[in-house]
Formats: sequence, C-alpha cells, structure tokens
Amino acid sequence: MKIDLNSDMGEGFGPYRLCDDEALMDVVSSANIACGFHAGDPETMARMVRLAKARGVGVGAHPGFPDRLGFGRREMPVEADEMRQQVLYQLGALTAIARGEGVPVAHIGFHAAMGNMINRDAALADLIMQAISSVDPDLIVFSMPDTEIERAAKRAGLRTLTLFLADRAYDAAGQLVSRKLPNSVIKEEAKVRARVRQFLESGTVTTIDNRTIEVRARSILVHSDTPGSLELARIVRSEIEATGATIAPARDVLA
Amino acid sequence: MKIDLNSDMGEGFGPYRLCDDEALMDVVSSANIACGFHAGDPETMARMVRLAKARGVGVGAHPGFPDRLGFGRREMPVEADEMRQQVLYQLGALTAIARGEGVPVAHIGFHAAMGNMINRDAALADLIMQAISSVDPDLIVFSMPDTEIERAAKRAGLRTLTLFLADRAYDAAGQLVSRKLPNSVIKEEAKVRARVRQFLESGTVTTIDNRTIEVRARSILVHSDTPGSLELARIVRSEIEATGATIAPARDVLA
Amino acid sequence: MKIDLNSDMGEGFGPYRLCDDEALMDVVSSANIACGFHAGDPETMARMVRLAKARGVGVGAHPGFPDRLGFGRREMPVEADEMRQQVLYQLGALTAIARGEGVPVAHIGFHAAMGNMINRDAALADLIMQAISSVDPDLIVFSMPDTEIERAAKRAGLRTLTLFLADRAYDAAGQLVSRKLPNSVIKEEAKVRARVRQFLESGTVTTIDNRTIEVRARSILVHSDTPGSLELARIVRSEIEATGATIAPARDVLA
Amino acid sequence: MKIDLNSDMGEGFGPYRLCDDEALMDVVSSANIACGFHAGDPETMARMVRLAKARGVGVGAHPGFPDRLGFGRREMPVEADEMRQQVLYQLGALTAIARGEGVPVAHIGFHAAMGNMINRDAALADLIMQAISSVDPDLIVFSMPDTEIERAAKRAGLRTLTLFLADRAYDAAGQLVSRKLPNSVIKEEAKVRARVRQFLESGTVTTIDNRTIEVRARSILVHSDTPGSLELARIVRSEIEATGATIAPARDVLA
Repeated sequence: MKIDLNSDMGEGFGPYRLCDDEALMDVVSSANIACGFHAGDPETMARMVRLAKARGVGVGAHPGFPDRLGFGRREMPVEADEMRQQVLYQLGALTAIARGEGVPVAHIGFHAAMGNMINRDAALADLIMQAISSVDPDLIVFSMPDTEIERAAKRAGLRTLTLFLADRAYDAAGQLVSRKLPNSVIKEEAKVRARVRQFLESGTVTTIDNRTIEVRARSILVHSDTPGSLELARIVRSEIEATGATIAPARDVLA
Repeated sequence: MKIDLNSDMGEGFGPYRLCDDEALMDVVSSANIACGFHAGDPETMARMVRLAKARGVGVGAHPGFPDRLGFGRREMPVEADEMRQQVLYQLGALTAIARGEGVPVAHIGFHAAMGNMINRDAALADLIMQAISSVDPDLIVFSMPDTEIERAAKRAGLRTLTLFLADRAYDAAGQLVSRKLPNSVIKEEAKVRARVRQFLESGTVTTIDNRTIEVRARSILVHSDTPGSLELARIVRSEIEATGATIAPARDVLA
Repeated sequence: MKIDLNSDMGEGFGPYRLCDDEALMDVVSSANIACGFHAGDPETMARMVRLAKARGVGVGAHPGFPDRLGFGRREMPVEADEMRQQVLYQLGALTAIARGEGVPVAHIGFHAAMGNMINRDAALADLIMQAISSVDPDLIVFSMPDTEIERAAKRAGLRTLTLFLADRAYDAAGQLVSRKLPNSVIKEEAKVRARVRQFLESGTVTTIDNRTIEVRARSILVHSDTPGSLELARIVRSEIEATGATIAPARDVLA
Repeated sequence: MKIDLNSDMGEGFGPYRLCDDEALMDVVSSANIACGFHAGDPETMARMVRLAKARGVGVGAHPGFPDRLGFGRREMPVEADEMRQQVLYQLGALTAIARGEGVPVAHIGFHAAMGNMINRDAALADLIMQAISSVDPDLIVFSMPDTEIERAAKRAGLRTLTLFLADRAYDAAGQLVSRKLPNSVIKEEAKVRARVRQFLESGTVTTIDNRTIEVRARSILVHSDTPGSLELARIVRSEIEATGATIAPARDVLA
C-alpha cells in the first residue's frame, strides 16, 4: 500500500519563515508550495522546488488569497472569474519556476479561506476546476473527501487525492471539528500515533463523539505552521513506515 | 512586407488605468501585458488576453520588478537567480491565464529597470534567456537591436524581434538618446509620420546629429503610458498601412 | 450661511491618478486625503497637503482598509482593535506629513467598506471615536446624519459635520438609495443643480418616492472617482455661490 | 551612571515574527518599533507599545524603506522629499498608535538601507532631521557617533543618543567593520561580556587591529533579528548591572 504524506511549504516571505522547510522536506512526500499571494515569493518558491527535487518530493501549487497580512485566512468577496484568474496566476507562476528546474507541478491544493469558499459553492468549484484542467489536465487535486472541490474536480476530469488529518477531531459526518471548539486539535503524541495506525490499518477514524467511521483518504496532511509540526510529521512518518506502507508522492499513489 | 506594432498593455492595477487599453488594442498587433509586479493583476491580465484574442493581437509577457509604487522604473539590487525567478514567475502567471482563454503567449519583453539591468550584464542576460528557453523555447524575445538581451536570446536559441521607436531620438551609435536630454522625445505628428515612413521605406533613421543610420527592426513600439499615446499609435498605424506594409503579430512577422 | 464642500483627494498611488486633484482642489473647501491603505502614498499625501495649504482648503484624513487592489471597497473581517489601530496609523501618518508642512489635520472621514462596517456597529464606532479623541480631541468627524459614526463621535466628545450628497437619491428614511438600484445616481446637471438649490434654500431633499424630507447637513460631498466629478463639483460650487452662501472649510463652518 | 539598552522590535508582519519580542522587551530599556514599511503592521505596533508601556520601556520609531520583501535592506533610489515623507509617515503612524495607549514616542532610529543613505548625504540628513524636528522637537535621535545623522540632528536642535554595538568589530576610525569581512561579528559570550565591561568602565573598545579607541556612546544596541539575540541581550544586561550602572530609557539617560 502506498500513501502520500504532504505539508504546506515555503509559507515564508522575504526574511520570514513559518517552519523549518528544509527539515520538513526530508519527511514529506508531497509539498504544497505557497505561490506568492498569501505567502511565498519567487525566490522562496524556487528554493522549495530545489529542495523537493533533490528528495524526490512531489511539487504542488498551494494558491491562496492575495492577503499576506491575513495569511490568506480571511475570506475576500471576489467575483468568481477573479478567483479563477487568481488560481491560474499562482499555478502558472509555480509551473514556470518548477519547469526552470526541470520539475513538473504534480498537484494543487487550496489554502485556507480560498479553499473554504470554493467548498461552499459547486458552481465556483466547477469554474475553478475547469480552469485548472484547461492549463494541465494531468494535475491531481488535493481535497478532503466528499467536498465540492472533489466532486467538481472529478466532473472536470481531474484526478483527486483525498486527505486525512491525524491531529484533528472528526465529527460523525466525517467533517473536521472546528478549531474553535474544545478537543478539536489532538496534541498528545500517543493519540496521534494511534489515529494514524487506525487509519492505516482499518481506514477508519474515531469521531469526537466516539463513533468509528470510514475515512476515504490516500494522503495524510500535516500542518507546517504550528509549533511542533516537524515532530508531528516525523511521528506520522514513523507510524506509516511501521505499518509497512510505502510513503510516495501523489502521482505514485495514484499510479 | 510584414511589420509588428506593439505597446505595453494592462499597466493598471485594481481601480487604476494608465491608458485606454480597449482602444489601443484595436491599433496594435502585439500586446506586452504587465504581469502583476510593476503593474497588472490577475483580473486585468485576463481582460487584456480576452481583448487581444478577440482582435487577433499577439499576447506577450511584460515582466518588471516587484515595485508598484515605483512602477518598475527603479533599479533593485537583486541577485541574478532572484531576477531569474521573478521573470519565470511572471511569465508563468500570464501563460496560465492565457491558456485559460485558449491563447498562447507568443513573446516576452522586459519592463524599464529590469530590462536596463539585463542589458548591462551579458551573464545575467544569458541566465534569464536560458530560463525563458527552458519554459518555452518558442517564445520570441522583443529587444532593441544589438543589445545584450538580443545576443543572449540568440545564444539561448530563442527567436528575437527588434524594435524601432518612432517618437524617440537616436544617436549615431543607433542607441536611444536619454529622455533627460533635450529633443530626445519627438512630439510633432508630422515628424513622427516622417520617421515612420523613412524607417519603412529605407530601414533608416535620421539621428539627433543629423546623420542617417540603418535601423534593424521588425516591430514598432509605441509607449502607452504617455498622454497622446493612443493618437500616436494610430498615426504610426496609418503610416504603416499607407506604405502598403502589413501589420501583423510577432509570430507572423517571423514566420 | 457657511457651508463646506468636500471631496476625496489623493486617491492615486505611484504612477496612478483617479482624478485631477489639482483642478478639484480649486473647487472644494475640505479635502479628505487617502492615507496609504486603500490608496495614497507618502509623496502623494504631501502633494495634497501642499495643494490644500496653498488654497486654504481644510486637510482631513480619509482612512480605509489595507486593500489597494480592492480600493478599500471590500469588507475585511478585522477585529475591533485591529481596525482601531488601522485608523490611528493612517490618521497619525497624515498628521505628521501635514505638520511637516505646517498644516493641522482638521477632520476625518472614513472610506467605503471601513465606514460601512463602523456604521453597523455602535460598540465599534465607540472604540474608533474614542481612539480618535485620544489622539486629537479637536478633530471634526464627517458623517452622514443619524448614523452610528455621528452618535459615537458625539459620545466621545468630538464635533461632527454631516454630509449631503447632491447626486445620490435618498429614501424616505433619509438614507442613500443603494447604487445598485435604478435611479440611485442623479446624473443630469439640471437636476443636480436643483437639488443643491433646494437643499441650500430649504434644508430638504426630494426622495426617490417623491416626498420632501429634511436633510441635516453642513457639507456637500462630491465624489472624485467618477467620470465628470470635476464638472459636478464646479456645478455644486456655482450653485452654492449663487445662493449667497459662503463656501468654507469644516472648522469655519462649525466656528 | 545611566545607560540605555535598545533593540529593534516588532519586525514581524501578519503571521510572522523575527524574534521573541515579549521576552526581549523584558531586557531592553528602549524599543525601536518597526513602523509598517520594511516590517510591522498596525496591530503589531500596538502590541509592542503595550508591552513597552507595561515595562517602562521607551518607545521609539524605527522607519525603513517600503520594501517588505527586502526587509528594508536594499537601497532605493528615492528623491530626498520622498524619503522625508516616508519618515514622517511612519513616525506619525507610530505616534498616533502610541498616543492611543497614552504613551509618547521618545526616540527615532533609522533602519538599514534608509539609515545608510542618510548617513552618506549631509543635505539629506538635514532635510530629514528638520522634518522630524517640525513634528516633535523633543524627539531623541539614535545614531552612531560622528555620523551625518548625529551632526544633522544637532543642527536641527534635536537631542541625540549615540550607540555602542557590543557584538561588532570596530576599525581604528571608530567605524563598524563591514559584516562581509571576517571577524566582524563577535559571537563568543566571554568576548562580548569583556567588551561591554571595557566600554562601561573605560569608555573604550579594542579595534579589530588591536588598538584601543574611545567610544562616545550612551546606549548599547542589540540586534534582534539574529539567532541568539535574546541571550546576547541578557548577557549585555547582566554585565551592565554588574558594573553598577543603571539601565534606563533614552529620556532618562539624557535627563
């Protein structure tokens, strides 16, 4: 069994860093690279591509809203076509930088508020996915399972890779419990390990109200912008390896 | 005989416009579209691509420095690799937006300070042109004749299209007289008409010190960000048509 | 009778202009100067202050959201304290630039989405007005009559100057009809003239549903960012002068 | 004897931090707060002011160039008046935010490339210092001794506080050795301690070529944006206290 391990990378800007990208790049198999809107700049993007290339890590675009101050976490009232152009702009920018290093962009995953807005609006999701498909029909779309993004990606003929979050509580409907609620983030190492193992062995997760539900996912997402993220990623990696699964980039997982 | 007529387009931002892009797009055959650094934004870029597509105007990338306030006219002390990534970023961004409209990017021309810096440094020019070639070896590079950009583009295997400026004085070496010097900009309509005609009929220009020199150029550049630019473009177009030449985008001129 | 005539000024950025600020500065008695967030930059702000000083025009701060691309017209989900600091930042920036020219900042008026958000939230309005009062208790707050901004300004001990818009339709409650509705903007010169005259002579306006209501206002606001704004401002000015009223900056109107 | 200990603070932006400002604020007596151009934003500035107020730390403005990506370290070809307005803008912004907390701005010190450019040009230094004096003649200007900034500040009637850098090598002329040269930065704790002690006891420093020269300084500057800066600041503080000197903000040192 192959499974992908991915994280958001290059979310710095100029002198700033949000995480130790170099160390994290040794752990993941797919890197979602910030494309200069919510974070990132051309030089940082190129650095990420080079780090990924040297390690065989899959390169992905991680577009967000043009709001550095708010780190792309604030929703913006943009027209559908404006968002479409924002996505294409960022995807194209990374594609050219990656091509300059001889590396293809393999996948795309949306950042924060932009992703939330797309997931609330099937028509918007269709518009965005068709735009992505027009630029590169081989791109793999990262998403949570059973979302507008996943459905629209499939309608547009794009492959998808669904995500499991090892450190976040799920509700009975299989959705993430809001970060604002108590016990929504799982911090104890032992619990995270157990959740990864359960997911890998049985494809299930225990919900916040103690039910066991199926989780349809082929990739584990580890957030990079929280304290301890590097350690969490290493824990997830060691658990995956302990189960005998192979950690591989999105393209290999879907191959 | 085919000749291209080009102008910088989409150099607005959000609520701002520098020229009447819609009207100017009716006059030119190639549009150098600002890519979001010195000017432009995703929505404006898409608007330019749509205007160009509807008129058969060639779409080109017009990258500049990330300095909106200074409109890309201030030199920035960037490392060579940083500039390389800035160029790739902007080129890729426009490429994806254009592909979203089903249009290829046909050419690239550098804005202001970025172009000046590349033209002073053969090694930098090589780095940039090789980067461009790695992304799209079919791109046509716009440049003044006998510059580092032209030479490096050829070394990188890229086609070039050289420019003539009808409203700027030339010196005996075939270089533009600095805008800061008297009589460097030609404003009288009759004189501009005469210069276009002379260039088209004999391939020459009369220099500021009254010599006649050859000008090796296949495209006429009309600035868009000066008062009267639209009228100037129309004058140039009517002169070209009066000589019986055909106005055509870069790809057709070089075909 | 003294009345103020004000407009938003300096809403350019770098190479960009939204209106002919020099010409408009000859017409108004108060200038609401953009402070570098939704528009404006330090050099443009200083230019506005100098133009105002030379003509005896009152200088005011016109703070907005940090969203150049959206021109401050998009609401942003900011915390109350964050907005407070954004207002203080911009007010202080203009105050120092004006002081460098020996000119006081006399008033403050909020731009677009920021003003709308303050007007919907009495507690937020109190926070903002107390902040303004802590910086300069002599500042005059511009607002529409009977709004949260006006009420909070008074609670904070600040003087207010209420506005009349000559080119916008009013409803029976004395509120502006949304720009999105038909007939919300009055464009015919004769009608604008008549509305100014009626307002000056009787202190009333005829609403969109043909009632006559009182308008409590001491200043007429003319938008600067629409085509024909300069001409509209001149019309309003000539009407004011025709009635024998004196056009004067906010401080003189309230003196 | 009273001596000031100062550091650059609040050089983050949105989600980013360059140092542990909270911890560093416990160590210094003066905080040079980034004002939103090279770093900082209104909310971060207010947070710094509140931290400083709670600890009796002096609040100062730390203006830089509007170049977040380059962190204000790249020189910009700005006109003298443009730089003047940039300084006033940032100073005024912090002044209003500080006043909102009931705190005065006590000093000003220039960041990186902006400081370097002013120090190379006596006329520019005069223009900037006169501007500062016009806004607040009580401001204290931080500078290295015997620089254009110090001389111009005195000519403008402003008080100055000169700086000693404990972790940087000096040449025989009393100037800092460029960071690009070997041994320009002193990293060993014992050596830093010895230099602080020597400076405090004898007012001298041992130069890179082993001479002993006088250093006229009343404040020690500790950089915040380097690894180990917090520890360095604590070392400097403990050495000052060990000599029996009193650590005090700029105003108290000059009182």
